[in-house]
Amino acid sequence: MKIGIIGGGAVGLLFAAYLSAEHDVKVYTRTRNQAEILGKQGLDLYRDGEVMKMTLKAKVIIDGLDEQDLFIIAVKQYHLIELVPMIAELKIPFIFLQNGYSHVPIMTNMASPTVYAGVVEHGALRRGLNAVEHTGIGLTKLAAVKGSGLLLKEDSSFFPYAEETDYKEMLTKKLAVNAVINPLTAILKIENGKLINVPYYHQVFAGYLKEVAGILDLDRASLEEHITQVCQNTYKNRSSMLKDIEKGQRTEIDSITGYLLSVAKEKDKEHSMSSMIYSMVKGMESQGG
Amino acid sequence: MKIGIIGGGAVGLLFAAYLSAEHDVKVYTRTRNQAEILGKQGLDLYRDGEVMKMTLKAKVIIDGLDEQDLFIIAVKQYHLIELVPMIAELKIPFIFLQNGYSHVPIMTNMASPTVYAGVVEHGALRRGLNAVEHTGIGLTKLAAVKGSGLLLKEDSSFFPYAEETDYKEMLTKKLAVNAVINPLTAILKIENGKLINVPYYHQVFAGYLKEVAGILDLDRASLEEHITQVCQNTYKNRSSMLKDIEKGQRTEIDSITGYLLSVAKEKDKEHSMSSMIYSMVKGMESQGG
Repeated sequence: MKIGIIGGGAVGLLFAAYLSAEHDVKVYTRTRNQAEILGKQGLDLYRDGEVMKMTLKAKVIIDGLDEQDLFIIAVKQYHLIELVPMIAELKIPFIFLQNGYSHVPIMTNMASPTVYAGVVEHGALRRGLNAVEHTGIGLTKLAAVKGSGLLLKEDSSFFPYAEETDYKEMLTKKLAVNAVINPLTAILKIENGKLINVPYYHQVFAGYLKEVAGILDLDRASLEEHITQVCQNTYKNRSSMLKDIEKGQRTEIDSITGYLLSVAKEKDKEHSMSSMIYSMVKGMESQGG
Repeated sequence: MKIGIIGGGAVGLLFAAYLSAEHDVKVYTRTRNQAEILGKQGLDLYRDGEVMKMTLKAKVIIDGLDEQDLFIIAVKQYHLIELVPMIAELKIPFIFLQNGYSHVPIMTNMASPTVYAGVVEHGALRRGLNAVEHTGIGLTKLAAVKGSGLLLKEDSSFFPYAEETDYKEMLTKKLAVNAVINPLTAILKIENGKLINVPYYHQVFAGYLKEVAGILDLDRASLEEHITQVCQNTYKNRSSMLKDIEKGQRTEIDSITGYLLSVAKEKDKEHSMSSMIYSMVKGMESQGG
């Protein structure tokens, strides 16, 4: 299958690495530099101290997209809007891997009859323009937004897929996970595991989780069980938001906590902690870390 | 006047420095080392790039207190309890300089007929065991808890006093100031001024101030005006709580936010942000910064 992966960050490169073993993969990047390095030198996949060299094609996004059998969109939510004019009218299958929920209208308005939402539960760290480390073996969940029949076949036991039936529920649950873990770890500057292992941080975690469950109308107890599990599975990880703050980069706070706040206001739900957390992270972002 | 100052931290040394110009001052310290250095080498007061050497007496607290005309208690709230057996029965005047409100029962139960509460609005930084920098010229507010007539006379225009009539109101207002500025600057790792100068941090400040005003039944608008003024006057300062967290030291979170939470629970007031802030700082404290 010819697969186009748009986005050369950690998630895009992780998908490119695993899919290139069986498919004809082309990575579309934001910078010409990255496209050239990927095309010439290939992509290094690090896992458990080993490195595998994968070969693939690469091209800079602004040079235009080519005919593909499937596009996987792996850019951050806040870059998605620039991409819409290039993809909205294409009639080929799409998988969208963004966090948050604000990309739902983009997905439902695509001309393509086959659009899937995906939720990536792997740990991945970009180690260079053409190197990605698979830091935590997880799962990619896929749920149809439109159409059916598009499920990537598992080519590697390290990179499994699971089909979910309700994409809204899947994205909402992932939003809740991100809303609790990402900003709290970014503000407290801690690895995910400390949210459950340090007693006072666990109080912050449990108190805030209650507000998030209330806003999203999720069952508090089962959400707590789920997010606790995620923290255990990724206990040594530094969340993407923490890493972004440490690097002085833009975070996904708007598509996560910003979206949550819009839901809370619409439903008239208690959101004082979410407001405080949002402004704290926005302030850190504005100060460059 | 013979004045005993108990506590060799920044506030104790600042009072010792200014009072020793006109009075017979003895500083009571927790460590023998500090008492020896203060007694032998004197105390250096830094202000505006100049340094003044003051001579005074010093003694370690556990060797016992001596006859004095006035005691000024400048230990942290959480060390006060150990001191109570040594001072509770003394019949001479006292000034207590603690933050928070939990020391009110200790003050009202003193055998002394003359007990004042003080609120220190100076900036002070201990630069060594016998050196203190006066980083911000402010004011010491004094209000009678019991008795009257004890107001320190202004000996230096750099170190003025003002008498307040209602000690409960004075301490409550100071509690509100500390409750907003200290934990927020400690969590965000910022100087006081950024709470009002960085737009998103100002949102955190204003949002949290509203909750604090609600808990303490203070007028929100005048509290905001007051705390904004304090942040302007101390805009370059790092709060004591931020410094404690950075040094991995115990903070005053229990006597400030912990006390605030006990009031909120008693009065059944909204306190979700205070709970979160309390647990964040306690967690940072438990992790050593």
